[in-house]
Amino acid sequence: MGYKETWSGKINRKLIKKQHIIDVAAGRCKADLVLKNATYVNVFSAELETQDIAVAEGLIVGLGSYEGIQEVDMTGKIVCPGFIDSHIHLESSLVSPVEFARAVIPHGTTTVITDPHEITNVMGTDGIDYMLAATEELPVDVRFMIPSCVPASALDESGANLDYRDIDSFFTHPRVQGLAEMMNYPGIIAASAEPVSKIVTSQAHHKKIDGHAPGIRDKDLNAYISAGVYSDHECADLEDAMAKLRLGQFIMIREGTAARNLEALIDLIKSERMFDRCMFCTDDKHPNDLLEKGHIDYICRQAVALGADPIRTVQVACLHAARYFLLNNRGAIAPGYLADFAIVEDLKDFHVVTVYKKGELVYHDGQVAKIAAPVIPPHLESAAHNTFHLPVLTPAMFENHRQRGVIGMIPGQIITEDRGYANSVDTQKDILKMAVIERHKNTGHIGIGYLNGYGLKAGAVATSVSHDSHNIICVGATDTDMAFAANRIAENHGGIVVVKDGRILAELPLEIAGLMSDKPLAEVNDLLETAKEAAYTLGVGKEIDPFMTLSFMSLPVIPTVRLTTRGVVDVITQQYI
Amino acid sequence: MGYKETWSGKINRKLIKKQHIIDVAAGRCKADLVLKNATYVNVFSAELETQDIAVAEGLIVGLGSYEGIQEVDMTGKIVCPGFIDSHIHLESSLVSPVEFARAVIPHGTTTVITDPHEITNVMGTDGIDYMLAATEELPVDVRFMIPSCVPASALDESGANLDYRDIDSFFTHPRVQGLAEMMNYPGIIAASAEPVSKIVTSQAHHKKIDGHAPGIRDKDLNAYISAGVYSDHECADLEDAMAKLRLGQFIMIREGTAARNLEALIDLIKSERMFDRCMFCTDDKHPNDLLEKGHIDYICRQAVALGADPIRTVQVACLHAARYFLLNNRGAIAPGYLADFAIVEDLKDFHVVTVYKKGELVYHDGQVAKIAAPVIPPHLESAAHNTFHLPVLTPAMFENHRQRGVIGMIPGQIITEDRGYANSVDTQKDILKMAVIERHKNTGHIGIGYLNGYGLKAGAVATSVSHDSHNIICVGATDTDMAFAANRIAENHGGIVVVKDGRILAELPLEIAGLMSDKPLAEVNDLLETAKEAAYTLGVGKEIDPFMTLSFMSLPVIPTVRLTTRGVVDVITQQYI
Repeated sequence: MGYKETWSGKINRKLIKKQHIIDVAAGRCKADLVLKNATYVNVFSAELETQDIAVAEGLIVGLGSYEGIQEVDMTGKIVCPGFIDSHIHLESSLVSPVEFARAVIPHGTTTVITDPHEITNVMGTDGIDYMLAATEELPVDVRFMIPSCVPASALDESGANLDYRDIDSFFTHPRVQGLAEMMNYPGIIAASAEPVSKIVTSQAHHKKIDGHAPGIRDKDLNAYISAGVYSDHECADLEDAMAKLRLGQFIMIREGTAARNLEALIDLIKSERMFDRCMFCTDDKHPNDLLEKGHIDYICRQAVALGADPIRTVQVACLHAARYFLLNNRGAIAPGYLADFAIVEDLKDFHVVTVYKKGELVYHDGQVAKIAAPVIPPHLESAAHNTFHLPVLTPAMFENHRQRGVIGMIPGQIITEDRGYANSVDTQKDILKMAVIERHKNTGHIGIGYLNGYGLKAGAVATSVSHDSHNIICVGATDTDMAFAANRIAENHGGIVVVKDGRILAELPLEIAGLMSDKPLAEVNDLLETAKEAAYTLGVGKEIDPFMTLSFMSLPVIPTVRLTTRGVVDVITQQYI
Repeated sequence: MGYKETWSGKINRKLIKKQHIIDVAAGRCKADLVLKNATYVNVFSAELETQDIAVAEGLIVGLGSYEGIQEVDMTGKIVCPGFIDSHIHLESSLVSPVEFARAVIPHGTTTVITDPHEITNVMGTDGIDYMLAATEELPVDVRFMIPSCVPASALDESGANLDYRDIDSFFTHPRVQGLAEMMNYPGIIAASAEPVSKIVTSQAHHKKIDGHAPGIRDKDLNAYISAGVYSDHECADLEDAMAKLRLGQFIMIREGTAARNLEALIDLIKSERMFDRCMFCTDDKHPNDLLEKGHIDYICRQAVALGADPIRTVQVACLHAARYFLLNNRGAIAPGYLADFAIVEDLKDFHVVTVYKKGELVYHDGQVAKIAAPVIPPHLESAAHNTFHLPVLTPAMFENHRQRGVIGMIPGQIITEDRGYANSVDTQKDILKMAVIERHKNTGHIGIGYLNGYGLKAGAVATSVSHDSHNIICVGATDTDMAFAANRIAENHGGIVVVKDGRILAELPLEIAGLMSDKPLAEVNDLLETAKEAAYTLGVGKEIDPFMTLSFMSLPVIPTVRLTTRGVVDVITQQYI
């Protein structure tokens, strides 16, 4: 049995560490690391200062003139605190947490707050445990908000159904900051016990509650905020953001892959009045977006290009999120703060050249330091790689002669249109069959409908990334290819596949819960781009992302019509049609 | 045995309350209270807004148009969040906590953060427990910082000697916010285990640590801050404050009875850059100062008179302290925040006309609502009223023929001068005998010295308020009157006394730990003013506060010479002379 530390033992261990920190700060012994002649962003005084930054025990201990065991000259660079993403669903990168870390570290990200909403809809609390295990001791500090809406809708058949008791124990985990975006704002405003009890539980643990309530106002907004929702990341315009700021919410300015609000909200940063209650988030970042544009560094670059003050931009990118989440030891360069640094060439392009996490060099000049993959307990590893529970599918299961609703895609948007009824495929008229196949609990449920606006002329496309329940969505010109595609997804334990005439044209296995790959981001991106090309060769319109748009087709919380495992549903009336 | 609530029971109880809050906010049922047509300070947007403020369950739930069971028209008034004193030693008011509450509520104070340093030097951890008990459920929310320096100096004989283990358990109390001002900054900078372990303990409980480090700079300041000290209230000039702000400390702008820094620091509020890291505190408020000038309302009035923006001043007086102490449900007028209101006539005089605490009217138009005195456990009540443990004193015990140091008073200052030696009283030359009588542990220790500059011509003056150990200080022209005065203090269980020729001219009993009275503030002030007059009639110089100046004569951390229970000590060399 291992050594069990007593409370006194813990205090004494920390005391010794603290005494070393003080000794270094006081100049009595050498720092572990000194960034010499460092021009850094002082997020408190909103100044650029130039002096040595001394680091010991993973913390910044002194600013002034210091000697170090290791000294690195910073002349010509600007040292920022490590960047913080205040709200992301890590699963949307399509890679495992360790690969996500490898991908975002070169962009200066040292802390992200993730909501494991996707994997939890598949695996329930095992999904939260898996993500906590998979992020332990990563060089990006991954903090958690516990999913509040599993399932997202009662119309959905997800892998789990969590009430407040299910999530209660997670709030005491040291990396859990609170309850994730409360999307069920109608439920909160109606004071319904199920969602409100989750807020009450998070508050009882003195934790935060994030919001998600686009455009609500007046008494609805008062009700939502008075329930205990402290932030919002769904503001698409300044008016919405100001209404929420005035009532005390913090605003996460979102600039992700699908939703981009920076330009609309840039005045929040430009004006002095309330920018201290704003932070940045991405919400969802897809592989090519992460690879090509970057992460929080990209948002900073865009903000400055839109006219925001560079130093204020850094404050938004670092300090404000840290303070909101009560992560009071980061987001600034000052004694006692984590030695997390994003070192950039300038405050215009925010091109990151070097990154330190807790005083360790984790990225320099194109090279990410070796990152050990966290050890995941075997039962979680096994559970995460075996989430498909459905029968082998036959073409007969996709047969249909009834009238079914036609869901109309609108290029560039995730809302859909009601385009009447159909009872068979007609590729001339761009009417395709679509199926949503329950894959969590072997119910055999298959919802059938029709899709207009996708463009596929032959074969089938299927994906297990289908918000928010992540059943298998399949669109096809023939029942045979649809069954083949869906079976292939199950064989791969998840992912994306493009097939034609019983042949796989391209595929991206996503073997972790059907959502993420164990491969590096660049490889995943290559497979994904190849699969996209395959879908385009089958006729999918170039103005459409063949998989992302598909993945929203079964989310029955976004208007107008969607397909679930039980059929086509009118989201407005919440009735099957 | 009473009902023991389960965790689920607690969640459900809070759920029901929360559902009511939401129902009121959504307009589905009437608020408990509505402040109609309220012009209020929005501390987030830095605006004055005018709308109804709806209150339910002690919280603000909605801003807009609301109906209430009780409605109060606010036309012509300005509603501010309740004011917060970020650092006070409540004992210095000389009254019990309940009387302190009665005294500060009319000034709009709804939260104070107290450091029970004085009573803890007398009673040890019992003093903390007593103050926690004596502040339970008061209409001023009294939050605690746990004393870090008991005793203040190794030269002192106080009633207790607390190490980190002694204070450890207090950090889990729901009204304890952290570790109080770490006055032993030389010890921290030297990395000495005793004080540093207290910081480590507070941090291990995720609590704050307040600072006290006038004028330190450079590596010393880095060392002190890197140890984990988050704030300072000892800045006497802008340069000192800016140095600390730049390194990440929060600044408490102090304007109390003895120390007044508002004018010197007013630019911190005037400049936008860092005022969000500043708050107000009083540190020490004596009875007449509280009665005549006020409390945080007085500081606001002064700040605006000195040119500070009124709304920004309110932000400093409310929001910033709340955020620093992580009291995230107060300091603002917004849904979910405590319904603590200081309602003023304008933002110039800050004349408080009405005060609400958690939605209850606690002050209006000169009348304080009835406040129930908290029930204090008998063992603490008894301990607090029996803190004098010393023999009956005889004049012979004060006899002296040796050469002793002469402590020179400087009018208007608390520092002293070394004025040589004396071996007897000489009222012509204003040489008086002074004694510090150990009164905690019956040691019989009596330190004898001489005092110059006090002016007493006959009789004796004694007080048990003597920083920081609160032994009995006695100054006299004769040994007989000195013994008589000191014995009288012990008989009264503490306080202040002025005697002549074996007769009591005036006295103020301070029966709680020898520091506080159970009487109301106005009565205490009357007795105190009468005692001052008596001291002046005995010859004490009018330029001197006869008791306050005396109370610092045994504090061996302020230059130059002091008298302790063991004799006259040179504070600079830390040697008895």
